Parts: sequence; C-alpha cells; structure tokens
Amino acid sequence: MNQPAATAKSRVICTVDFEREGKQADVLRVPHSRNDSGWGVVQIPITVIRNGDGPTVLLNGGVHGDEYESQIAIAELARTLQPKDVRGRLIVVPALHFPAAMNGSRLSPIDGKDLNRCFPGRAEGTFADVLAHYVSAVLLPMCDVNIDLHSGGRGMDFVPSTTSHVLDDAARFERTNALGLAFGAPYHVVIKEVDAGYTLMTCCEQRGVVAISSELGGGNRVNPGGMVATRQGIARALAHLGVVPARTAPAPSPTRLMTVPDYDCYAFAPRGGLYEPYHGLGDAVAKGDAAGAIHFVDDPHREPIVIRYGASGELWCVRAQGHVQAGDPVAVIVAPYR
Amino acid sequence: MNQPAATAKSRVICTVDFEREGKQADVLRVPHSRNDSGWGVVQIPITVIRNGDGPTVLLNGGVHGDEYESQIAIAELARTLQPKDVRGRLIVVPALHFPAAMNGSRLSPIDGKDLNRCFPGRAEGTFADVLAHYVSAVLLPMCDVNIDLHSGGRGMDFVPSTTSHVLDDAARFERTNALGLAFGAPYHVVIKEVDAGYTLMTCCEQRGVVAISSELGGGNRVNPGGMVATRQGIARALAHLGVVPARTAPAPSPTRLMTVPDYDCYAFAPRGGLYEPYHGLGDAVAKGDAAGAIHFVDDPHREPIVIRYGASGELWCVRAQGHVQAGDPVAVIVAPYR
Amino acid sequence: MNQPAATAKSRVICTVDFEREGKQADVLRVPHSRNDSGWGVVQIPITVIRNGDGPTVLLNGGVHGDEYESQIAIAELARTLQPKDVRGRLIVVPALHFPAAMNGSRLSPIDGKDLNRCFPGRAEGTFADVLAHYVSAVLLPMCDVNIDLHSGGRGMDFVPSTTSHVLDDAARFERTNALGLAFGAPYHVVIKEVDAGYTLMTCCEQRGVVAISSELGGGNRVNPGGMVATRQGIARALAHLGVVPARTAPAPSPTRLMTVPDYDCYAFAPRGGLYEPYHGLGDAVAKGDAAGAIHFVDDPHREPIVIRYGASGELWCVRAQGHVQAGDPVAVIVAPYR
Amino acid sequence: MNQPAATAKSRVICTVDFEREGKQADVLRVPHSRNDSGWGVVQIPITVIRNGDGPTVLLNGGVHGDEYESQIAIAELARTLQPKDVRGRLIVVPALHFPAAMNGSRLSPIDGKDLNRCFPGRAEGTFADVLAHYVSAVLLPMCDVNIDLHSGGRGMDFVPSTTSHVLDDAARFERTNALGLAFGAPYHVVIKEVDAGYTLMTCCEQRGVVAISSELGGGNRVNPGGMVATRQGIARALAHLGVVPARTAPAPSPTRLMTVPDYDCYAFAPRGGLYEPYHGLGDAVAKGDAAGAIHFVDDPHREPIVIRYGASGELWCVRAQGHVQAGDPVAVIVAPYR
Amino acid sequence: MNQPAATAKSRVICTVDFEREGKQADVLRVPHSRNDSGWGVVQIPITVIRNGDGPTVLLNGGVHGDEYESQIAIAELARTLQPKDVRGRLIVVPALHFPAAMNGSRLSPIDGKDLNRCFPGRAEGTFADVLAHYVSAVLLPMCDVNIDLHSGGRGMDFVPSTTSHVLDDAARFERTNALGLAFGAPYHVVIKEVDAGYTLMTCCEQRGVVAISSELGGGNRVNPGGMVATRQGIARALAHLGVVPARTAPAPSPTRLMTVPDYDCYAFAPRGGLYEPYHGLGDAVAKGDAAGAIHFVDDPHREPIVIRYGASGELWCVRAQGHVQAGDPVAVIVAPYR
Amino acid sequence: MNQPAATAKSRVICTVDFEREGKQADVLRVPHSRNDSGWGVVQIPITVIRNGDGPTVLLNGGVHGDEYESQIAIAELARTLQPKDVRGRLIVVPALHFPAAMNGSRLSPIDGKDLNRCFPGRAEGTFADVLAHYVSAVLLPMCDVNIDLHSGGRGMDFVPSTTSHVLDDAARFERTNALGLAFGAPYHVVIKEVDAGYTLMTCCEQRGVVAISSELGGGNRVNPGGMVATRQGIARALAHLGVVPARTAPAPSPTRLMTVPDYDCYAFAPRGGLYEPYHGLGDAVAKGDAAGAIHFVDDPHREPIVIRYGASGELWCVRAQGHVQAGDPVAVIVAPYR
Repeated sequence: MNQPAATAKSRVICTVDFEREGKQADVLRVPHSRNDSGWGVVQIPITVIRNGDGPTVLLNGGVHGDEYESQIAIAELARTLQPKDVRGRLIVVPALHFPAAMNGSRLSPIDGKDLNRCFPGRAEGTFADVLAHYVSAVLLPMCDVNIDLHSGGRGMDFVPSTTSHVLDDAARFERTNALGLAFGAPYHVVIKEVDAGYTLMTCCEQRGVVAISSELGGGNRVNPGGMVATRQGIARALAHLGVVPARTAPAPSPTRLMTVPDYDCYAFAPRGGLYEPYHGLGDAVAKGDAAGAIHFVDDPHREPIVIRYGASGELWCVRAQGHVQAGDPVAVIVAPYR
Repeated sequence: MNQPAATAKSRVICTVDFEREGKQADVLRVPHSRNDSGWGVVQIPITVIRNGDGPTVLLNGGVHGDEYESQIAIAELARTLQPKDVRGRLIVVPALHFPAAMNGSRLSPIDGKDLNRCFPGRAEGTFADVLAHYVSAVLLPMCDVNIDLHSGGRGMDFVPSTTSHVLDDAARFERTNALGLAFGAPYHVVIKEVDAGYTLMTCCEQRGVVAISSELGGGNRVNPGGMVATRQGIARALAHLGVVPARTAPAPSPTRLMTVPDYDCYAFAPRGGLYEPYHGLGDAVAKGDAAGAIHFVDDPHREPIVIRYGASGELWCVRAQGHVQAGDPVAVIVAPYR
Repeated sequence: MNQPAATAKSRVICTVDFEREGKQADVLRVPHSRNDSGWGVVQIPITVIRNGDGPTVLLNGGVHGDEYESQIAIAELARTLQPKDVRGRLIVVPALHFPAAMNGSRLSPIDGKDLNRCFPGRAEGTFADVLAHYVSAVLLPMCDVNIDLHSGGRGMDFVPSTTSHVLDDAARFERTNALGLAFGAPYHVVIKEVDAGYTLMTCCEQRGVVAISSELGGGNRVNPGGMVATRQGIARALAHLGVVPARTAPAPSPTRLMTVPDYDCYAFAPRGGLYEPYHGLGDAVAKGDAAGAIHFVDDPHREPIVIRYGASGELWCVRAQGHVQAGDPVAVIVAPYR
Repeated sequence: MNQPAATAKSRVICTVDFEREGKQADVLRVPHSRNDSGWGVVQIPITVIRNGDGPTVLLNGGVHGDEYESQIAIAELARTLQPKDVRGRLIVVPALHFPAAMNGSRLSPIDGKDLNRCFPGRAEGTFADVLAHYVSAVLLPMCDVNIDLHSGGRGMDFVPSTTSHVLDDAARFERTNALGLAFGAPYHVVIKEVDAGYTLMTCCEQRGVVAISSELGGGNRVNPGGMVATRQGIARALAHLGVVPARTAPAPSPTRLMTVPDYDCYAFAPRGGLYEPYHGLGDAVAKGDAAGAIHFVDDPHREPIVIRYGASGELWCVRAQGHVQAGDPVAVIVAPYR
Repeated sequence: MNQPAATAKSRVICTVDFEREGKQADVLRVPHSRNDSGWGVVQIPITVIRNGDGPTVLLNGGVHGDEYESQIAIAELARTLQPKDVRGRLIVVPALHFPAAMNGSRLSPIDGKDLNRCFPGRAEGTFADVLAHYVSAVLLPMCDVNIDLHSGGRGMDFVPSTTSHVLDDAARFERTNALGLAFGAPYHVVIKEVDAGYTLMTCCEQRGVVAISSELGGGNRVNPGGMVATRQGIARALAHLGVVPARTAPAPSPTRLMTVPDYDCYAFAPRGGLYEPYHGLGDAVAKGDAAGAIHFVDDPHREPIVIRYGASGELWCVRAQGHVQAGDPVAVIVAPYR
Repeated sequence: MNQPAATAKSRVICTVDFEREGKQADVLRVPHSRNDSGWGVVQIPITVIRNGDGPTVLLNGGVHGDEYESQIAIAELARTLQPKDVRGRLIVVPALHFPAAMNGSRLSPIDGKDLNRCFPGRAEGTFADVLAHYVSAVLLPMCDVNIDLHSGGRGMDFVPSTTSHVLDDAARFERTNALGLAFGAPYHVVIKEVDAGYTLMTCCEQRGVVAISSELGGGNRVNPGGMVATRQGIARALAHLGVVPARTAPAPSPTRLMTVPDYDCYAFAPRGGLYEPYHGLGDAVAKGDAAGAIHFVDDPHREPIVIRYGASGELWCVRAQGHVQAGDPVAVIVAPYR
C-alpha cells in the first residue's frame, strides 16, 4: 500500500476533551490564511458523546461536499442524541470536508483537492492535506470503527448501498461485512478498489480500524429514499456495534452481498457528449447490451455512439449528469459476491 | 406587454434559402469576437426541410443549455427526417442557445444571460440579445407555429408536461391547447406567467405565432422517461399540425389540462441551506402539509426550517439540487384547469 | 439632465401593501436566473411602517455593498421601531444593492455594475438596472424624502458628513440643507457632482423628492465613530421630518455647511503604486502642500512621486487602500459654503 | 445603416483645450468605478498638437489592445512631434481602448466588449460604450480625417495593408483611396464589410469624416516589417494630408488597390482543432486548392479535415494561432480592385 | 519543531556577490513558467551593502503583500543608504513575496500560498516554496540577525509593535528582546505562537539567527503613524546592532514588554456577518466585556450576536474589515510580560 | 542532481501490453476527480508498435500544450505507421501533457503546473506530478531513447533546432549528438541548462536513456517551415536509430552543432512593456548591439528602454508576444560548439 505513516504535529486545534463523559459540541479549527483574514481558520463542527465503556466510533459524512443524505442525517444525530443513549464514545462530524460541503462540490474550493485522495495527509500540505492528517494522526488512533458515509455526488446515481474493501484478514473482513449487513441498505458491495491508495478507508485498514462506507443517492440532490436508508442504516449500525441500544434501531432490512467482479464492469464514455442512459438503477443487464448513447448536439448529423456493457449483472450506478467527458464512467455493474 | 418591435438589421448570417424545396443542413453564424479570433462566429446548427404547401413550424430545443431531452430528440429528427415525409416547412434548431448548450448551463458562458429573458432581442446588444433578435426579426415572421421544448434544467425536476399561456383570444387559446393535448405528455399546463415579458413564448404571441413549450425532465440529466415523452410528443404534435403524416405518429396518450391557479402554489426557500423534499413528482398534497425541510449542516444544532405548501393540488415540480438559496422555488403545485 | 423617465412595468415582486397601517417586514423579490435555479430571485429585505398621516420617507443603506455603518443602523431601526412611534410612512431598506452588500463590495457580483450609476434603470436590463428601475418607477413616486446613506467604501475614508446637491430651486435647496444640518454630522457638504447623471440623488431631484446622502466612514470597515454619527443622525433627521417624535432624537450636534469649490480640490494619482498619505482627516491644508507620495516598491531605486494639493481647505477624505491606480483620487478638499 | 445618432452628454472628462495652439499632453478620464476605487477613472493618454490652419486629423491605434505596431509608432509620434512641424490639428491617441491595450487583448478586461462593435456608443452603457460615445459625440465632430490603425491581433497575420470601405459617394471614395495609396503599404484593400454596422469606420462615414484603417502585422507580436510600414505610412499619410511637411515623409512606396470580391474569399474552420496552414502571406492561390488542414490531436487516428479555398487570388491573411474553433476564419483572399 | 532541514539546490538565480564590498542593487530571479513566457522569472529586488566587519542582517518586508509600511521604508533605505554608513553587511529585500506585494494581497496570486507558512521551503515545490527554500538555504546561513517587518494586513489593525518568540535559550531571548526594545515601538510582544511551525521566525530560530518581526499598522492601507514607527524603528534597530552609526538613529522611544498570556486572549467570530467593534486600539478592556457585535443585514429582524473578551488586558489588534467569517479573530488582548 | 528516484506505485492505468507484437492504439487513464465526475480520468492517447528486436524509443510531443508541430507530426505517425515498417518498439504519445494540449497552453489548466518542471514526479502529487511519475517509473525503464519534441510555445520563436544536454559521459554525449545531427534541423544546440533539475531530459539522463529534444517553431502557431523540419527530422532520426528502414527517410540535411556559451547570451527585459525586436531569427549579432526596445504605451512621453545583446553570435530565438514582463527573456544567442 502507498500510504506512509503520518507523524508530524497536527496544525488543527480542537478544544474537545475526548476523555470527558457527556456531550460536547465543538469545532475543529483548521488554519486557513485568507487575504482578508491572515489568522483565519475553517471551523468544522464536531460533536463528541461519551458515556461509559464501549467502542469508539467515528461517524462522518461530507468527505465529498456534494453528497448530502449523510450530512443531514448525521447533523440530526449530533443535535438529538443524548449521552444516556450512548455506550462508549461517538465522534460525529456531519461534514468533514467542510469547505466543499458549504460549496456543494466534491472538491474543495480552497485547494481543488478531493479529500478522499489525500490520506494519510501532510501537516505541511494544503488545506485538504492538513485536514486528512488530523484525521489520520489524531482521530483514527482513538477509533475502533469508522463509518464514513458517501453518496453518488453530482456525477452518479446509486442503488443505496454500503461498501467496504475485500480484506486479506478474514476475521476483519467478516466483522466489516457484518457491519455493512447490519446497516441494511439493499446492497453491501465489497470491492477491490482501483486507485484507492489515498482514501480514508485504506487509511483505516492500515491502522486496524474497521471501516465501512456507502453510496446512498446521488445526482447532487437529496434523495427521499436515500434519506430513509441513511437514517435507518445509521441507527441499525450503531445498535449492531452496541453504541446505542438495540431497541432504538429500526427493524432489520434484507441486504445482498455484492461485488464488482472486474474492470469490465465499468462502462466508460469513449468521447465527450450528451449521455442518454437506457436502463434504470438495479436493472438486470447483460454483457453486450446497449447501456446508452452519446449524442453530438453540436453536429446533429453525426451518428450517436452506443456504449455497451462489458459484463452481466445488475446496474449499480448510472451517470447522473447530461454531459460526459472522454473517460467518464457512465455505468457500473455489480454481481453477487461468491 | 413589454416587448417592443425588433426592427434593426440582424447581425446573424445564414446561407439557408428558406424558400427552397428539400433539406438543407446549415448553420447560423452569430458574430462573436474572441480575443483569439476577432472575426470569430458561433455556428449554430439549423436544418430546414421544405416540401410543398403546409404550415411553417419552428421546432427548437436548447433555449436553456442544461435541458437535454429535446436537444437529443430534435437533433435526431434533423438527422433522420426526409423531405418526402414533410408537408410544409420545418425549421429545426436542436440547440438554439448553442454556447449554453455546449456548456451544459442555463445561462450563456459568453454574456451570462438567460436567452429566455432577452426577447425580442437587440441587434446592438450582447450575444444572447443578437441571437434573440434574429429569431424574432427573421425566423418568427416566417412561422405559423413554434414548438420550443424545455426541461427542468439543473434546478428542477418536472412531471413531463407541455405548457402554454392563458390567452385572451379564445380561438388561439383553443388551437394552442389542442396542440398541447396532441403532444400527449401527462399534463398540459396553461399558465399566466410571472415575469414573462421577455420570453420567446410572449414574443410569439405578439407576432400571432401559435406557441407551446414544455418541461420534460430536469436535474441536469437525460431522463429516460422524459426521452420517451419527448420523442413521441414531437411526432404526435407534428402529425397533428399535418407537417408529418399521421401514420408516423405514436398512438395518442391521455393528457390532463392543468394550471397553476395562483402565486400561493409556489413554495419558496426562506433561507439558504440544504433542502430535503418530502414528496415525489405528481403526489397529491394539501395546503399546509410539510413540503420539505431546510437543514443547516454548518450548524448541526440549529433546528431545520420546515416549508409548507400554500395550496392543494398535485406536485408539478420539485427542487432537483441539494443546496438552495433564499428565494429559490422548491415546489410548484398544479390543479385541473376549470 | 440625462435621465429619461422609467415607464415600463417593473419585474420586481413585492407583496407589501404600502397603504396598510402597521409594520410589515417583507422582501423585494428581484428575478435572477441562476444556472442552478432558473426561477431564482434575490430577496431584499424591506420593512414598511405606517401610522396615520405624515410624510413618506425612503431610508436606505447599501447602495454600495462595502459601506457598512448605515446597513447596521438601518437594520437595527427596522428591527426595533414600532408603528406607534411613527407618523406617516417609513420605507426601510437596510441593504438596497443586496448582492453587493452580501459580497462586501461596491459593485455587484452579478453584473459588475455600480447601482448608483444605473438610475433611473431599465426593466429589460441586467440585475442592477432592474433594481434601479423598481426604485424609480415604484418606490420614489410614493416618497417625499429619500435618505440614502453612504460611507467611503473600500477606497476612501471620510470625515463623517452628509451630502446633497447644489440645487437651482432655492426653496428645495434650503429644505434639503435643513435636513442635512438636522442630521448633525460634522459637515454637510453641498456639491455639484461630476458624473452624477445616473445616481439615485439625481433621480430624486427629477421626481421632486427631497434627497440627502452621506459619507460616514470608509476603508471597508465598521467605524465606531461613524456608527455613533449614523445612529444619531438618522434619529435626528427623522425627528426633523416629524416621522418620529422629537423626544426620541439625541441632542443636536453642530454641523458646518461645506462645499467642494471646484475640480482642483481633487488630488489624483498620476501613476499606479503604493500611496502614503501625509495628513489626517479634517486637517487644514494649503494649495501646493505635499499631500502624499506614490512609492514604487518594484523599483526601490526610483524616486517616489510627491502629489500636491490643488486647493486650500480641509481634508474631507483620503485614500484608504495602499495600492492606487493611475487616475484614482487620493484626497478631496472641502471649504465652507459661501 | 444601423447606427443611431449619439446625443447624450459624454461622461468622459478631458481638460484639453482643443482650440489652443501648441502641444498638450493630457488624458481622457473615463469613469470606471472599481471595488477599491469608487470614483476611479481610466486615464487614456491623448496628445493634441495644433498649429495654424489645416485639417483636423484623429490618428489612433489600440482600438484592439493586441494590435501593437500602431500603438508604438503613434506613441513615438506623440512624444517627438513638435507644433512647428504641424499644419492644422493632430489629435493623437496611441491606445484608444486603453484597458484592452494594457491587457494585450482585443476585448476589454472590464466589460468583455470589442470597442469596434460599440459605435456610436451610449453614455449610459458600459465602459466601451461610454468611450465610443465620447469619440463619436465629441472627437469626430471636430475631425476631417480619421486614421485608425489596426493589425491582425492575436488571431490573424496580414500582408501589411491599409483598408477602407467601398463608398457610394464617388468623390469621397476617391479621396479615401488616395489617402490609402499615399500611406504606401503593399495593399490598399477596399471592402464591403460584413457586420460593420457598429465600427468606428462606419461611424466616420455617417459623419462625413474621411476614414482609413489598416492591418499591419498580427499574431500578438510586434512585427519588424510591420513597424517599418507603420512608421513610414503614418509619415506619408500625414504629409499627403498637409498636416506635416512633405519633406519629412519617406519616399513613396508602391501600393496595389485590392478588394475582397465576395464571401467565398473567406475560408472557415468547419470544426475546432489544430490548424496547419499550407501557404504563406501573399501567395497566389486558386479556388479549390488545399488551404490547410485541421488536425485532431485528441484522436490521432482520425483523418485531418482539409480546408479548400473558395476563390482565387492572393492570400491576404492566415490564421496566426494553432487552435481554431468551429467558424473561425483561417484565410482570406484578395484580388485586384476593378 | 516541524521544520526539516532544507538541503536541495536552490532554483533561484542571484548574481550578487555577497562577499563584495560596496553596494549592489540586483534582483533574485525566481523561475516562474508562465503560459506566455515559459522561461519567465519573477525578479525580486535585493540590495546588498557591505562595508568592513560587522554583523550580517537580513532586513525584509513584504512576506505578506498587503503590509505596506515596511515595504516603503525598506525600499527607501535601499535607495538612500550608502556603504560608508554601514558596518558589516546589510541584505535588504523590501518586498520578499514580490508577487503578493504587487498584488496587494497576503497570499500569492501564483500559488495561493502564505509565504509565512512555507518555511523552510522546498526546491521542488511551487513558487512560494521555492522562494522560502532560497531564504532558508542560501540567505539565512549568512545571517546573524533577521528583521522581518509585518503589519496587520487587510484583516487586522494593530498598536504598532515589534514581536518575537518566547525562547528557551535565555541568552538569545534576552538578545532578541533587547533588539525589540531598541526598535522603540509602543509594544514589544513576546509570544508562544499557535501554528508557527512553518514561519520564517521559526526557521531563524532553528538556524540560530536572532529574529524579530513586527505589526506596524494594518487595514490594507499605509498608516501615517505606522510609517513614523517603521522608519524610526529600523534606524534604531540597525544602530543598536552596530550596522549603522548610532548618531543616525532617532532618539529612543519607550517600549513596553508585553505578551499574549493564553488562548483566551483571542476573541473569535462564532458566525459570519458584519462586525462592529466597540473599542479602539490600546483600550484597557476586561474579561467579559462586550468586544463587539456581529450584525445580520440579510435578516434585519435577527438579533446581533455580542462577542465578549475572554481575558483582561489591552486591545492589541482589532478586525479591520467589515465582513467576518466564522472563526475569524476579531480582537487580541495583550498584557505586560512578567 | 536534484531528482530522487520515483518508486511508489503509479496511479495511471494503461491496458497496453508493451510486450505484444503489432500495433496497439490505446489511452493512458490518469485519475482526475472532477466535481461532476468523481471517478473521472483524463485519457491520453498512446500508440505502441512493436515488431521484432530493436531499440525501444519513446517519441512524444506536447509536454507543453502550446507547441504544435510535433503534436501534429507524431499523431500522423501514430495513425499511419505499420508494424511491418518498424524494428524494435516505438511508444508514441503525440500530446503527453494532454490537458495542456487541449487547452493550447504551456501549463496545465488542472493544476497550473509545467510538466517539464515536475520530473521524476510523485504518485501522491497533483495531476502533472502523477503523470510525470508514470513516465519516469513505468515508461522510461523500458526505453533506450527518448525523443521529446518541443517548439517555442507562445513566448518564443526559434530557428528550428534539436537540443541536448552537455554530458560528462563522452560516449553518451557523442551518441546523443549523432542522433541530433541525424534529425537534420538547421542547428543542434547542446546546452548546460539553467534550472533543469526537474525536466524530462534530466530524468532520462539519470536513467541512462539517450535523450534529445527540440525547438521547432513557436509563437503559438503552426509554422509551415517547422512542420517540414519536424516531419523529416522524425523520419531521419528513427531511421538513424534503425527503428524504421533507412529508405523511408528523407535525404540528410546539414546541421550545425551550436551551444549557448554562457548566461550573457540571454537578453532579459528589465521592465514590463511592449517589446519591439530589431532582428530576425538566425541574424548574426554582436555584443552591445541593440536587440530591441521596450515601449511604454501607457506613458507615450517616456523614452523606450533599449536592450542590448550581452554576447556575439547568431540569434537563436526571439520574443514572440508583444507584451513582456520584467525578467522575461527576449533573445538568446548561440555560437558554434567548440
């Protein structure tokens, strides 16, 4: 794996006492010199609730700013959950990459970076690097579990799903999948990620933290169905971990264990244009079927390019914006895991 | 009405001979000095098909660049329709506000204008003004009918619908509604538009051109259901007008005649934040029901603001992006017309 | 004068009933299509308080977004003033050019315009034109008096002052000066403005509305002394007009009637560079004195350019930012009127 | 013609006394509110030299900011020419669209406009409109002749040429051509311009001012050959007009009278890409010859598009930047006039 | 401490011979590829004056581009000081972060970085990293003392002060304080800086260079009082070090030794809005006093938030811009040191 | 040398089988998260042709996006060359820094970096770093030779030339020069580069790869003469290496071996302004001759600054844009090597 250890002193200031019992609503103060405020910081809301013994769980949304369901549900939890309903310690950050969340964009308006390509971070880097460094150097060493909730963002729409990595350590793989199945989204998708060297999930793996993530909507909107899956899934997962009482969790919901078998499951746009998808989320599709077409409105007399699936399975996600650029994924297929 | 007559000479060059029989695929050349091409133009594809006697219909998409269904379907028609299948004259422009369409945005990347607030245009104005002026001064005087197809764009998702204005002239109102009903979308919505003084539809009215528009999807994506409604609706409407043979049209589809009774049908966001809608398109809702909530992720401990409907009816459209700003409409209600 | 009459129908929506007794807190809804909200508007807070007979006064701040004292004081008044304390009608708009005020800039982030160069406005223009048009076509016809409060903005720092135009109509000139003297800032400066053809004050003059303005601070900050002058001045001016009871006004404060005798009173930077002023606000200075120097930090071995005053008098305002560009005013001199 | 009369009062301040004998080096002060200087202006250098009786000539460069030869040569003239060497009045503006000239761009960095599409201007418009209005309303009424020198700018390279319009008035056409021939560039090209309704030259025609322009280089660079043609041409033209003594002019240089016979002389890029020209300036080319090719480096396996000339003649100008967009002219052919 | 050693070869070119006697006015040439000048550099003026034996002092301003007093005074010194008046070696850089200084901004317009968060720099980094690396790897190893003069920049206004770090090494702490006291500003403030791992001062400490800095004005303007303090302070400090003759220094001025006792001395804005300060620089304030208020002009009916001081002492600096963002410091309190 | 070894795992995906015989046209997929496509990549066309034994040559253009001749010629080769005409392996990348090439700019529109200052790259860096890392870690270890073709870009015009470094290893220096001479441009220039620590050529040297580069035109245009030199030079060089048959190469062309003897051969602009060059490419010039002048159009009465050559020789390149900034090179002189 690519990630080196993060050792330098963090530049982030947080006055939370992580050992204190009770509920603390505070902020992370991440230094950010602006032209009109040289000593300015970005304040990222963090709520810590501790009550007796139990696991420490970092529950966060907003690693990408345009993924909304979890930001809303986690902020709600931070507002409403009381210490008496907790066992152990819950570290709650509704919108981790705060400047991106305020901007409604995946990438930071400050340094243009994708926080989920910056782990384990660098104390001497730009904003996203400094923030990633704080998480890996200060927060994760306290944690047993990380639930880092994502959605499809602007570019994709997903069947509501949880995700985790295929792990070599069978016991941890099982513990992780059990957490995903407890969450209760329609799919729990286990993946061998391409280009995952710098993600929060990889960072967790290297530090022995059990980690699941999710895809719970997309298309740059708040999805009502995704909101149900997110609110209920968080409650079920925390109950499964014993951090909140089991009685507070909604009834279990059946979840299928899926995977993305190989690279052929990704369909890419070979050219830029306007993409018309032919299928809906969850549809069963077969290798060689037409997935959609790229239209050239600037040249109406040019034939559209039809894109075909490279594998059979179920349609996990589809392109959620009209325009595509060459190389953009437009569909990903999943199939049952073993 | 606000619109003055457009009389100055157009700056747009088009070598189409609008009187010629047959099919001509050409471009409108709209002057656009760039820093690296002082004599540059923007080329907007236009296809004209003429065959014998019959009405002249201007069929266009892309007045807003982020409304895709009609751009695709109209480009398809321009590519495939042959003179032998036409009676009269069809002027086809798949992406009228071409720079916006290439940019995938409602507004022009050139002058920041909404083309549908620029009619009847000005020959000495900026790009959008010059283009609007060409349409009103050169194209519309040749036309009997304008079918100007829209979708919800980035900000809204709609029940697929056609639209037209409530007109004082009863005969023209009836002819217009008949065209909308022939199109066959689920709703044909007749409206007394707020702030309509500078739209293409108002420009058509003042020149005696029968005009319908539409809302056929939204959310900055290509909607598969919207594509069906668009492709079939165009074919039915052209057949209804006698411009293409009736046998080529799909079977009729039932359409309900609806309206937006008054200003209370619009629900607005009183503050900016993250909007969670509570209902889906077409849902029956009642005055006073909660329409959705505005969440404040930057301040998780602040209560969300619940927005309520100001009228009863069916949900015509909902906000299709997560973030809202103060004053953004988040829902519009329709009710049966008379 | 240059300003034509504004006659077209306004595009701004306001649900205030200006004839109703009592206090209404509402917004002006100015149409502003955004890429992510095609039917979006900008909501500008407006508060109208009416109680029986008396003059109608439009009291507004924020024609320039970076002039803060009046925005704060007028918002405070809108929040706290009750109908029982009013005689006549008070139309209160704390931040008229609202997008500029939210941006903390003189010019609009929407169309780059200075609202005070857009009067009387145009219904078919860009945002600032549409807003100016509403003021001149809808609000001013209801008004007897306009108090439009300004500060020095980013570029200038001022001796706290009220201002008005030198008027041909002696009676109105006297009424206007009496209002300025009642306000009680250190100076009331009467000017024959250069380039005033498109200001709100000129627009008032042409419509017979008594109008004063002000300069109450500057340098892009909130000035504590300016706050005192602003809060007290508003109270005194409204009491002078009989709109609020005289007993609520602070004690009168002596005000000197000044003017800018001619164009030589303006000192300009002949070249761009870093400006060092040699005097403070209100200092007595003489024609030919060194006003300051332009330094060339990019070329330390080049001699600074010393700028000299072109007239004798008191220093009304000085440049409040380090960098200047060629043509920027760096100082303006006032002298007693007559 | 499209241009209405410009009648409103100019907003530009200039302290030159145009009636005074001698040399005055001054500036035009064009109002330009900036966020950091609300009363800021743009200072445009202007030099006026008057000595006794004789014609008034407005000699200017920099209508487009990226056309350099004339800016340099005219600034040189402003610096060195003395009243004793003048007969009549010379109004010299080296860089008329000053913000564009400082930016090295055709269009203004202030309002994005091409000054040569803004005549006769509007006092209530944006910066370029206000400037054009000053020229048409204040300067041109004083002038007998306008020499407005251009080059190819960023986009084009030209055979050094003067240009003028084909005029209906035979006497003025002859006087104009005589001035062009006196200038002594290789070509004097008389044109019926496409899209010329808002240029300075058209504005001169409508006011009875004899007007020539030029194309003296291009490619966003200072061309040594173009500098010779410019310096000598100005001297010959002023001598021809009697404004400077004939003895100061260089020896005459042979000039051919050319024209652009019709629209087929323009070769356009049908698609965007990388343009490779096949001929050099002044080459004799024939209709149907390959003019160049558009290459698609993003798709190396796609065949280039070869563009062919639509007319025979000499190559007046060629595209001077690698990238082209659809609709950009890449070559223009001239042929002898009559 | 966080800063590693800088060892790679510098990419900066400087033709100064630092060993040569006399005065050399030269530039640092820092590579900066631009799109229009691939081999372009940024030239940063540097003046080196050497005369016989004595300490080497690096005197610089402009680490932040919007801090002007020192840029002006140091450029003046570079222009006027002669070798005969020097003992030892003076390395004078009026505007170290030159692109920021030309831009009048704290951060670089090139890479958006704050130079004072980039030390000790990296030869393979972006512009600010490369520049910091040159200072730490080439200049500092020659130096005994660094006087790096700052002001409050855009965001803050300060009581004119010098500053230095609280050092573990008592002898060096004393030498440093003696230099600060010699400078003669009203305060010499010794601080344990938050987030100081990457500053020039920390870099000096690690290399054994005696280092003081300052805060000599602010608010993005040139402060006349700050200019006096700066000009006199430099002269006194250089005389104290023996680099210039004592007779050339102004009379000593009393300086109080102050400190920022702890983190409670900082008052922060909890929300964004318009900040009204209640006190002036140097005022004595008490813990719990209202420091100022945040006003919400977008919602005039919302109560302002009053911010209170967290410690008693004197007001060292206040917010110098109207708008604040959440987390911005608005006031800092100092108290006597020991 | 500065460059460390690149060892981390590349993030670039390429499905080419470099060991396979025949021709493969594929793309490099470089990860590039966009706001509207989180899993987006940039697709860079690569063609690999392998046929039996022989050297491996990486032939690429477009390290700078505004250098066009080689992009066109190399794309042509990728399109037309067949395996039967190859001996060994040819890795062909017409536009290596693809985002810059599509943008027509030297620097990347993604991260603003010059790819040729990023070698050997970093897998965890920004886009250009990741791309450079792939070249150095994956491609170069397969290569014997790199031919990396450049032109003058926007800023410079060059006598068509090949270039290489002066090498300590005499045998490799000779092999490199032989390759340059075989290419057959007018000059082969051997240089000791300033600021070459992070270039592709230095990276090749450190890995034992024979490397030549070139300067084959400039001025942001496609130069017809440069196209001839490029097409023929590539054919001759590949034939010289035995990768294509000798019979396919054009006749040899005489090449002179030149060098840039020292730093005095560079003439720089001491101030920004408008640069007028006095000589043409290849002209013989002498130390002390005037090279050109910087004109100040903003101040026509200021004397131009004349720049003089610091060495005698032939003019290798001249500034190809009108505006210069302080520190820009405007001319470089070459002289025969030994």
